[in-house]
Amino acid sequence: MTRNLKRRSFIETSVKGVAAAGLLTASCIRPASGSCLEGKFIHHVFFWMKEPVTQQARDKFEKALKDLVTVETIVDHHLGIPAPTDRGVIDNTYAYSLLTTFRNKADQDIYQTHPTHLKFIDDCQDLWERVVVYDSISI
Amino acid sequence: MTRNLKRRSFIETSVKGVAAAGLLTASCIRPASGSCLEGKFIHHVFFWMKEPVTQQARDKFEKALKDLVTVETIVDHHLGIPAPTDRGVIDNTYAYSLLTTFRNKADQDIYQTHPTHLKFIDDCQDLWERVVVYDSISI
Repeated sequence: MTRNLKRRSFIETSVKGVAAAGLLTASCIRPASGSCLEGKFIHHVFFWMKEPVTQQARDKFEKALKDLVTVETIVDHHLGIPAPTDRGVIDNTYAYSLLTTFRNKADQDIYQTHPTHLKFIDDCQDLWERVVVYDSISI
Repeated sequence: MTRNLKRRSFIETSVKGVAAAGLLTASCIRPASGSCLEGKFIHHVFFWMKEPVTQQARDKFEKALKDLVTVETIVDHHLGIPAPTDRGVIDNTYAYSLLTTFRNKADQDIYQTHPTHLKFIDDCQDLWERVVVYDSISI
């Protein structure tokens, strides 16, 4: 019984700890497959910055990206720069990658006209020279 | 006490159920942020197929993609087609999107030379006309 109580206590503490740390997000516990990506609406944006790309421009843009991904309908995100890979098929000419996932197209549509997104475009559109977006839904 | 026992039973069953269903993957429980993407190596591939794209070619390619993403070092994946979005910045001309995440570049390097990946290329390279890859690491 002592062991059982300890075990119960451990399990309860673990569950509470996981919940408190915000580790069990909707994106993680929903799909039966265990995938955080499967079934999601994928919105991947690549930015090419105006040359010369100053440190000041980088700092401003990275702060703006971090504000942008607070939009509530974003399930998960990855703010990236080109990885140190270089093969013929790889495009590593972009400056920033913004990968966001949504539950569905409707949630992505909300993001498109969200005040935080409009502010991001307003604040940063002078920084970039070219933007390419790839939107994907599961096969 | 009865209530406590029931609660314990519920929690234990829930934890076991979650574990048994494979819902608590490494990708989901590792990061303190709750993000499945943050810190990952992102490998996003877009395929343009040779015209005309027959249903037979699609079936073969989709089966091959599903085999490909069984490579052990892939943390998570999304097999996609263009979403029904259409704005000036959106490139929706590709036929398939293959988004995979890895713990780091080393794991992605293993994938590049993995027999399953080499077989995928060997089996399918006659189906595509153009491939573009974007690799990203977190800022």
